[in-house]
Amino acid sequence: MSQLKGVAVVAHSGGPTQVINASLVGVIEECRQHAEITALWGARNGILGVFEEQFFDLYRQDRALIAAIGLTPGSALGSCRYKVKPEDHERTLAVFRANNVRYFFYTGGNDSMDTAMNVAQLATDSGYELRVIGIPKTVDNDLPETDHCPGYGSAARFFACAVRDIGADLRALPRRVSVIEAMGRNAGWLVASAALARREPDDPPQLIYCPERPLTADQLLGDVEAVYRRLGYAVIAVSEAQKDEKGEPFGADHAMPDSFGWRVTGNLSHILATIINSRLKLRARSEKLGLLGRASAAHISETDRQEARLCGQAAVEAAIGGVTGKMVTLIRQPGPGYSCTTGLADLKDVANSERLLPLEWIHPAGNDVLPAYVEYAAPLAGEIEPLARLEERLVVKAG
Amino acid sequence: MSQLKGVAVVAHSGGPTQVINASLVGVIEECRQHAEITALWGARNGILGVFEEQFFDLYRQDRALIAAIGLTPGSALGSCRYKVKPEDHERTLAVFRANNVRYFFYTGGNDSMDTAMNVAQLATDSGYELRVIGIPKTVDNDLPETDHCPGYGSAARFFACAVRDIGADLRALPRRVSVIEAMGRNAGWLVASAALARREPDDPPQLIYCPERPLTADQLLGDVEAVYRRLGYAVIAVSEAQKDEKGEPFGADHAMPDSFGWRVTGNLSHILATIINSRLKLRARSEKLGLLGRASAAHISETDRQEARLCGQAAVEAAIGGVTGKMVTLIRQPGPGYSCTTGLADLKDVANSERLLPLEWIHPAGNDVLPAYVEYAAPLAGEIEPLARLEERLVVKAG
Repeated sequence: MSQLKGVAVVAHSGGPTQVINASLVGVIEECRQHAEITALWGARNGILGVFEEQFFDLYRQDRALIAAIGLTPGSALGSCRYKVKPEDHERTLAVFRANNVRYFFYTGGNDSMDTAMNVAQLATDSGYELRVIGIPKTVDNDLPETDHCPGYGSAARFFACAVRDIGADLRALPRRVSVIEAMGRNAGWLVASAALARREPDDPPQLIYCPERPLTADQLLGDVEAVYRRLGYAVIAVSEAQKDEKGEPFGADHAMPDSFGWRVTGNLSHILATIINSRLKLRARSEKLGLLGRASAAHISETDRQEARLCGQAAVEAAIGGVTGKMVTLIRQPGPGYSCTTGLADLKDVANSERLLPLEWIHPAGNDVLPAYVEYAAPLAGEIEPLARLEERLVVKAG
Repeated sequence: MSQLKGVAVVAHSGGPTQVINASLVGVIEECRQHAEITALWGARNGILGVFEEQFFDLYRQDRALIAAIGLTPGSALGSCRYKVKPEDHERTLAVFRANNVRYFFYTGGNDSMDTAMNVAQLATDSGYELRVIGIPKTVDNDLPETDHCPGYGSAARFFACAVRDIGADLRALPRRVSVIEAMGRNAGWLVASAALARREPDDPPQLIYCPERPLTADQLLGDVEAVYRRLGYAVIAVSEAQKDEKGEPFGADHAMPDSFGWRVTGNLSHILATIINSRLKLRARSEKLGLLGRASAAHISETDRQEARLCGQAAVEAAIGGVTGKMVTLIRQPGPGYSCTTGLADLKDVANSERLLPLEWIHPAGNDVLPAYVEYAAPLAGEIEPLARLEERLVVKAG
């Protein structure tokens, strides 16, 4: 393998995460180690920055600032949601050729890996030596070929802590029902993380619905009523993408009273709360934590951050070693204890593919996840400290 | 003043906060210093625990556990929302008499201070020596006679951090609008705290609406459009209690298209997002952080926690000193730097009264708060670290 000398471009795609900037720092630090990378450019707002030749000069940034960026949510380079067209790949390659760009690191999810794959293929076909490596990033954790995705651990940490904290509020002021909505696209990975909030069997959330399983209003109401009767309150974790038995977004069901004529999109937790309120006559409210679920600086998982950085470094190492057309993966090592190393997967095996939560990790009743999920996810989110509670030492009267 | 020997009861009322347990710890630690307090009982679920004589024996709890409780959101004793009836005060006094309860510490907001006042009055009228002290607690910060309320600083810290973090997401992936909803009842104190997220003038949130000022759909749309044109995105902070020009909950306005037929309650941010979406054709989404705003363990303000504890201690000290019928207040000291001492206010001056955000702290345009508010609130929430951003050092082409 000959040494390939030229410029490296790094770009972000899709929704930011709490640790996408940690991957960026991994790329920057590793590139600095290799003299053949003559400059490192960060495309502003993803592939759009490539088209427009808007690049941050990442070697000209203060090192202490770069370290601080690595602890910061959002995307320091900016990102985009842009549906790439076939001619865009040619445009990308033309920009790369014109600037002697020889390394391309693209951090993103399923769609982004498709773009990376196409650019890599086009370069090969046209005889331009370019090394393209994908860096996984998604809070949805739905990329195949990797144990998990950087970004997921922190988003899971946020959601579990949020459910724990909201649960403490519900326990303190009972006779209420709370419906807490998680992101996660079509996969239940993120809503499942609510299970990490528990220590005791009856701890909140008492109900977790994953979009891999349809949910009917009757099941929801029966489940909530049973929990409420037993405990005097109920905390429910639900995914934004929950479907009903017809495969429609939950709440679009025509069996619901017509007067529930809200716009369904982006309002699921409110719809569930209203159904519970109107049908069970319980005081239910909704919490839609939304974008905070992938942005909360206070809930970065240290494991996730370190792995995100590692993935950035591994991408550069692979490219320097002559690899192209691959995505970095995380490979869980045999115990005892949790650890991961990195590997590589073909972009074609990752692009436009979606890995859902395994059905065998969902409780047969469809309203919880099983311990196998908790074992998988707990080390990714990091320790979720239980909240202290008073001992049940009550005053006993002499009389 | 004679020494009064007997049992002390402490109870919580209304919504929990991130620091109500810190006040409880202040009460417990101070009571232990005074031999005349023969036992300290914590009523389970507020005044309901008094009626039902359900008390935690707080001297029989492990001290390390008590310290841990002081760092914990929720209410360790439990709380309640119960509309007190006149006969309830007699019931309370009967329980106190039967158990030689001579000290009553009641932690809550406006309604709770009314209950405390009535119990104190009834005791005086019936010749039973009882010392009743209110401990302020509300994330809404709407109690009069005190510079601010324990609980507010942490809720403000959460909201400011949430807006900062969500703002970083919006900046990174532009061409979006985010409507972030705050709690706060009728007062704008909590939504105003979004201003603490800013460092530069154009930082998110670009728009803050306080419920002290009515909002029309036309103003909202005009404001959002102007910000979006200037910056390419917009972050809006709005209060759950925002009213329209008729004094109705915003969104209940019949001038809105009839097809917006949602239940309005508890859905304001979604309504705003939908109006922006349909009228301006912008991609708007809502975030309703809800109960997390008063429960997030990761966002406790250290100043708030220390002051909450101080208020608990001061309540016990006042009662030991012979005071009754008062609420502890926080008194801001002249600078330089921020500090507070405690004082006492008559319960009758606090009960059932509501302190709104001063109109002179709201921008004349009705879509922001003024620096005077930021000066007031910043020390309560504690330092909100700005998120690191890359320097604008772009690649300059030779050609």
